[in-house]
Amino acid sequence: MADTTSLSVDVPALTSLLDGRYAEVRNLVRKNLAEYAGVIQDQVEMTDTDFRERVREVIKHMADTGATGLGFPTEHGGGGDVGASIAAFETLAFGDLSVLVKAGVQFGLFGGAVLQLGTKRHHDAYLRDLINADLLGCFAMTESGHGSNVQHLGTVATYDVATREFVITTTTESARKDYIGNAAAHASHAAVFAVLEIGGESQGVHAFVVPIRDEHGEAMPGVRIGDDGPKMGLRGVDNGRLWFDEVRVPRENLLNRYADVNEAGVYSSDIENPDRRFFTMLGTLVQGRVSVGGAGISASKVAITIAVKYALKRRQFGAPGTDEEELLLDYGLHQRRLLPRLARSYALHFAQEVLVEQLHTASNDPDYPERDRRALESRAAGTKALGTWHATDTIQEGREACGGAGYLAVNRFAALKADTDVFTTFEGDNHVLLQLVAKGLLTDYSTNFEELDQFGVARFVADLAVETVMERTAVHKILERLRDVLPSSDDGQDESTLLDADYQLAMLRWREEHVLSGVARRLKRGIDGGSDPVQVFSQVQDHVIHAARSHMERLVLEAFTEKLQAHPDDPNAETLAAVRDLFGLSTIEADRAWWMEHGRLSSARSKSITREVNALCRRLRPVADDLVDGFGIPVEMLQAEMLEQGY
Amino acid sequence: MADTTSLSVDVPALTSLLDGRYAEVRNLVRKNLAEYAGVIQDQVEMTDTDFRERVREVIKHMADTGATGLGFPTEHGGGGDVGASIAAFETLAFGDLSVLVKAGVQFGLFGGAVLQLGTKRHHDAYLRDLINADLLGCFAMTESGHGSNVQHLGTVATYDVATREFVITTTTESARKDYIGNAAAHASHAAVFAVLEIGGESQGVHAFVVPIRDEHGEAMPGVRIGDDGPKMGLRGVDNGRLWFDEVRVPRENLLNRYADVNEAGVYSSDIENPDRRFFTMLGTLVQGRVSVGGAGISASKVAITIAVKYALKRRQFGAPGTDEEELLLDYGLHQRRLLPRLARSYALHFAQEVLVEQLHTASNDPDYPERDRRALESRAAGTKALGTWHATDTIQEGREACGGAGYLAVNRFAALKADTDVFTTFEGDNHVLLQLVAKGLLTDYSTNFEELDQFGVARFVADLAVETVMERTAVHKILERLRDVLPSSDDGQDESTLLDADYQLAMLRWREEHVLSGVARRLKRGIDGGSDPVQVFSQVQDHVIHAARSHMERLVLEAFTEKLQAHPDDPNAETLAAVRDLFGLSTIEADRAWWMEHGRLSSARSKSITREVNALCRRLRPVADDLVDGFGIPVEMLQAEMLEQGY
Repeated sequence: MADTTSLSVDVPALTSLLDGRYAEVRNLVRKNLAEYAGVIQDQVEMTDTDFRERVREVIKHMADTGATGLGFPTEHGGGGDVGASIAAFETLAFGDLSVLVKAGVQFGLFGGAVLQLGTKRHHDAYLRDLINADLLGCFAMTESGHGSNVQHLGTVATYDVATREFVITTTTESARKDYIGNAAAHASHAAVFAVLEIGGESQGVHAFVVPIRDEHGEAMPGVRIGDDGPKMGLRGVDNGRLWFDEVRVPRENLLNRYADVNEAGVYSSDIENPDRRFFTMLGTLVQGRVSVGGAGISASKVAITIAVKYALKRRQFGAPGTDEEELLLDYGLHQRRLLPRLARSYALHFAQEVLVEQLHTASNDPDYPERDRRALESRAAGTKALGTWHATDTIQEGREACGGAGYLAVNRFAALKADTDVFTTFEGDNHVLLQLVAKGLLTDYSTNFEELDQFGVARFVADLAVETVMERTAVHKILERLRDVLPSSDDGQDESTLLDADYQLAMLRWREEHVLSGVARRLKRGIDGGSDPVQVFSQVQDHVIHAARSHMERLVLEAFTEKLQAHPDDPNAETLAAVRDLFGLSTIEADRAWWMEHGRLSSARSKSITREVNALCRRLRPVADDLVDGFGIPVEMLQAEMLEQGY
Repeated sequence: MADTTSLSVDVPALTSLLDGRYAEVRNLVRKNLAEYAGVIQDQVEMTDTDFRERVREVIKHMADTGATGLGFPTEHGGGGDVGASIAAFETLAFGDLSVLVKAGVQFGLFGGAVLQLGTKRHHDAYLRDLINADLLGCFAMTESGHGSNVQHLGTVATYDVATREFVITTTTESARKDYIGNAAAHASHAAVFAVLEIGGESQGVHAFVVPIRDEHGEAMPGVRIGDDGPKMGLRGVDNGRLWFDEVRVPRENLLNRYADVNEAGVYSSDIENPDRRFFTMLGTLVQGRVSVGGAGISASKVAITIAVKYALKRRQFGAPGTDEEELLLDYGLHQRRLLPRLARSYALHFAQEVLVEQLHTASNDPDYPERDRRALESRAAGTKALGTWHATDTIQEGREACGGAGYLAVNRFAALKADTDVFTTFEGDNHVLLQLVAKGLLTDYSTNFEELDQFGVARFVADLAVETVMERTAVHKILERLRDVLPSSDDGQDESTLLDADYQLAMLRWREEHVLSGVARRLKRGIDGGSDPVQVFSQVQDHVIHAARSHMERLVLEAFTEKLQAHPDDPNAETLAAVRDLFGLSTIEADRAWWMEHGRLSSARSKSITREVNALCRRLRPVADDLVDGFGIPVEMLQAEMLEQGY
């Protein structure tokens, strides 16, 4: 069983470890958050219209401090540091999330499209004003009829040789742009994604800068703008709809990094395959997903911090013979509800840190290998899915753990819950993203198959991939090797090995490889057997999701473990090892049925995992307050009234 | 595997089966809902202040139709039918939930306290005006410092012999009444729960009718009223705080059904034990929990209906070689996400129906046995917990399954989610309620031990109960008998038995008995070993919750099965049997690790349960639309914009 010696925490050292190389940037944002802390109350009290304006003001103030341009090139007034820009965004997510999302739309999505898909003429024209928030833009990709399936957008751009203009049109009602942040009230420009048709031939989706409002804020000719109206949350973000009726923009407004149309109307691109071109363009926008995933993890930290601190103030029901009631966190069940989620927030933090480092490296290296770039995109997709689902789950449990007090707007859960809810489906629906992760694994991030849709993947796997998958992962060999580490169900094993990081990792690796090769086999068998690929894919879909989740959880545990290995003398090493064990074992526990079904976990050992999780919760209980303090959330962001009351 | 012949549904017959004996009342409420359908849009558009007034208006209109007094005695203008009143409340939950909760506060909580805890003088004085919504009241039980632990409230009432008045005082800041619906704006009266002290001796918690506002709406002398301010949801309910500074009410304002104080200040009660007296009083308020559980189930129906209908309109991603994209509900994963939840809504519906019947019978029978009454209270607590958690879960999954469209307020998920969120913690925190269920099981609803707190239960069980539990449930004998039905892990079994209701029930019964006796043994072992009962209880708490949940799920499956047995010739019998199987098997699947750990499920059979759940989803896919139509939710309540668009 878990060591029962007491643990201690050096909180400043913990925050320093978590902040990592971006401590300075994170502290700048913490200062900004504290300065504009009033916005949290404004969110509760202002009308939607007023709050939208308030959020716009805050964004402008933040831009003036230099906190919003960190990821842009220095020659255009930016900071030239992609990693720092994401660290800033993650920290911003401790505060009001309308501010966060509006900043994400402006600097991440709109700014990212101009930066990544545009060329010097666009950078010169827009970046400086954009970074300063003097030019507000929106990212017009999603349509009412097409969210996840961006390749089949219904907005069309044609080229008019006579006037050297592109003509952009919303072809059907379901092709209206929808849920577009910044569109309903503030954006003067939009990065519009439309299918480019040249001489009647489709070249696939491309992006164009389209002015949508004039200097008086009126819609430009041919542009119709609607308001999405009230939403579950994010009241300060003006989400809207856009319709284009033969809207004309100069030829130069095509964001032409990957493809161009010359004056005569001839299309050219270095990437011949239109699917591959499309996914290359999309791939450059990976930063958005990395940012949203990080924001989800930050929101989970806020929720767990409030819930833990409340559980350390609030007493309920008495022990016999005493006058004082018990603190909520002294109940085993309450520990169970909060502490594994706290551990998961830590684990996801370190996984996110690895992802950001990889993205930072890739951003600065034009020769970053293609395969690695696709693996990075996949990892971003998976981390976003895990991080945002964790936020939804933790906020929900945290609210319930605070009872009626958690339901009052003044205590932050209302906004946290309503604002983050959309994180699981925007910037890529989480289920679709996990399928992307599985696709990458099944095709080994292959250059040639990047552009495959899901049915293409099914066919591809049927043709080739079982062997490929097997070979790449050397499944058999790995399984062989893992058998040495993993006891089979029948072996007796000392419980103490449960607290061995190698054991936990071996379990997660074994699951990943086994589920993945199972998916490949199922796809192959179905298609070889003559079944409709649509049916085959539909029936194997839950295994696909399981494979992706297994892969991601293995990466998360690995990141946590490697972080600890890299800091063996950290003053909090022992405590963090216990947090890591709690994450690792509670992750295994949640899917323990799977290991039992596959002969890798005996029933006795499965039960002992549950006992160990409980023991780890008890062991971490005395340092729970320090562990949440380690996140370094500005106290102004915890302005939860319930934490200030005596009970 | 599941039969693959196609299923059909007779929708009117299905609605008729679900509506049961209260079809007429349900249709009356459906008509009311349709008539005031505009309130759903008002909820989105109005200010909090205006919407509170609007909800008050709607309540008044509803009262005029006779839909709100069904549960009150006919001699006071009511309908004299408790079951009908709950059926009406369940149906009302298809609509705006501020209306529902305000109605619940007025007619259920305040009205229930006057009716159940008061005597003729209170009935004569208040009931008629209360039913007509001419007199609005609130239910002032919860305090900032005490929600679940009502016995330790800090509000005190003393008796002044000189003036023959009770003097009510908020003794500490944490004793202020909090989250009280109807208090912030509308209530003229409050049912105030306070510890009655007579001559310095506490007689436990009692309820008093206290006027809190005069005819001009001003707070009465000594009463201070605050507003809880914005909340996550329920914008139309005016939740507030109350402080009492030596507020005097006539002696007659004590709700004196179970205890009284004469003019001379002498206390008397037929129930000597103060704890038992308290729990008897609380027990009469069981209808509130039954109502909230039913409302949660109704809200889950609305959510699953919108999500299923959206999945039958919305297409995303194409099959190769076709122009048309796939409907969301044709994806295996999407079926997995929605259809087991649909099945659970059906199952909970039938379980709720049994509960309401029992309550109806108990309400009309003054000689209803005490033990049965306590079992009913326990069942109400457990059904409330399961029903409201199911609502939270289904609304969340439904929202995500509708993507960005689900996030817009116009599509109902925003309000559904925000409004129902508090259901899991009000009218009893769900975790506390499940502990109550387990306590009932452990003590066999024993008269003498009703008043035990959780530590008392631990001690009681340590002293006696392992044998009691064993004997009552005849665990050994039952386990023996179940072994004949249940294959052990090693036996091979034909998959077809999975679709046998007896098999599913046997599995749930075996789990219930095994977990329960395990709790008893653990408690006994801990306390016999000299451990602190507080520690023992804390460490066994997750098993306690598991025992209660196992018990409740067994009751739910039993209710579903018995309903089908009672209607063998129902035109939808075959379809409903498949729905029941999907509920039963997905419930077993969710906890399959437990059965494997306890040798009652082989790994092969566990995997076949998952396959069978998938097969049942595919089989039910073609009738999914009919199954949600069967709920009979007025189309006006589904005014989800996204269902009207073409994609």
